[in-house]
Amino acid sequence: MNPSEWFTEQVPGAESAFSLKIKKKLHEEQSPFQFLEIYETETFGNLMVIDGCTMVSTRDNFFYHEMMSHPALFSHPDPKRVWIIGGGDCGTLKEVLKHATVEQAVQIDIDERVTRLAEIYFPELCESNNDPRAELKFIDGIKWVKDAAPNSVDIIIVDSTDPVGPAEGLFGEAFYRDCFNCLSENGILVQQSESALFHLKLIGDMRAAMGNSGLSHLQTLFFPQCLYPSGWWSATLAAKNPLPAFREQDCLDKPFDTVYYNADIHKAAMAQPEFFKKAFSL
Amino acid sequence: MNPSEWFTEQVPGAESAFSLKIKKKLHEEQSPFQFLEIYETETFGNLMVIDGCTMVSTRDNFFYHEMMSHPALFSHPDPKRVWIIGGGDCGTLKEVLKHATVEQAVQIDIDERVTRLAEIYFPELCESNNDPRAELKFIDGIKWVKDAAPNSVDIIIVDSTDPVGPAEGLFGEAFYRDCFNCLSENGILVQQSESALFHLKLIGDMRAAMGNSGLSHLQTLFFPQCLYPSGWWSATLAAKNPLPAFREQDCLDKPFDTVYYNADIHKAAMAQPEFFKKAFSL
Repeated sequence: MNPSEWFTEQVPGAESAFSLKIKKKLHEEQSPFQFLEIYETETFGNLMVIDGCTMVSTRDNFFYHEMMSHPALFSHPDPKRVWIIGGGDCGTLKEVLKHATVEQAVQIDIDERVTRLAEIYFPELCESNNDPRAELKFIDGIKWVKDAAPNSVDIIIVDSTDPVGPAEGLFGEAFYRDCFNCLSENGILVQQSESALFHLKLIGDMRAAMGNSGLSHLQTLFFPQCLYPSGWWSATLAAKNPLPAFREQDCLDKPFDTVYYNADIHKAAMAQPEFFKKAFSL
Repeated sequence: MNPSEWFTEQVPGAESAFSLKIKKKLHEEQSPFQFLEIYETETFGNLMVIDGCTMVSTRDNFFYHEMMSHPALFSHPDPKRVWIIGGGDCGTLKEVLKHATVEQAVQIDIDERVTRLAEIYFPELCESNNDPRAELKFIDGIKWVKDAAPNSVDIIIVDSTDPVGPAEGLFGEAFYRDCFNCLSENGILVQQSESALFHLKLIGDMRAAMGNSGLSHLQTLFFPQCLYPSGWWSATLAAKNPLPAFREQDCLDKPFDTVYYNADIHKAAMAQPEFFKKAFSL
């Protein structure tokens, strides 16, 4: 294995690594916030890497983007206002905008360069960026939520990088309390929550911070994600009131396509592995 | 990343690779059938590698062994006779023997050296090898099934390596027809069936071979498996008659521990991703 022909991400702590064979490096730059790289891979299409961590590939991003959006949007009874904190590649935004109930979807990513590169190298993820309901802001998502009025949003999706660097504050109690304050009565927070195999302590800390913020109804969901450490990822839904029931019939009747997600997958993702139940007394 | 400090498996076709940092190589040998290596890793415990492919690690084997056994054993109404074709590390055998209904569990792996090494380096997987119901045979599983009498087994678990080398015949129509012939009326075949992300064509060929053999009721189940290509693995259940209903109450009341599997996970694993349903018109 010639290192110059492969991109490799080493996972600190797990002492594992995932590699993809590359055809060529298409781009690299130091943005004001992060080091961004784009590769053309042999079999995963294009690959975006941020600060050495794989973020998104053409081939397998559908798992993550679908599972970060549709379970929450098919749970909230009438999701009109959605914020995406992070999510600069616009893949989550595209999925959110598939829902006709949505009147406003605001993507708030601190790093405009991520979006500008996605427009070039992942145009299929950006195809809804000109939807009149979409708004792209390149500002600090933590401050955005802190300054927001009460009852101003139905769903907040925290589509962030790992909790180091710019994203660290997105896993903290102060941020979750601000989310609690601006969510509507049936509001749902969705937080990407890493790997249950590799990051159980981090998930525990996050759950505690959510609980302390008032977001006491938590539901972690699980899905495959080849590109991310361990190949098995999670998102955690949190709400101030019990999570609204799954609008299963609406999901079965959905007028748009998905690649991974469907009604059965929605319910399946909610199943809690035995060790996870034990770890958090579920 | 110093290559001498890591074990790396490259996945042909996918042009991806998974690596684990190693403390040391504990053993290597050429058996009459395969090249076997054992490593001590930094965070995954011990690792067995066969012909360059990761087979089993101390840390994450529970996903695979539990999902290869309990879904079938909690579906069959009264599983008494179980055969494991392959499975030389004895991890599936251990899970099968947790079921009190089982009167006889025969493990048929062509390569005795796999089991002898598992006894040394994975003793926790071998702790039921002396159970009076267990029988370990080191012969050709294909011939074993071919020579078996009709109605002689309730569950056949094909716990094989990838379909190249010694395991190639285990994915073929002739083998499945022999399984069909020796399964009892409610009998179930369980076949490890690779990654739906990386090996969809192989899964299609396997499903066609199963269908041609008479095993017309197929159910693929999905689970995480960090160690295997894409981190997302599958097993396919097949039967001559409709699969018996899940004995959910028995599962809820199970008197033994599992790490991943439980009743919710059982049902969740049966959910078919949208692209998988489309690929096979499910």
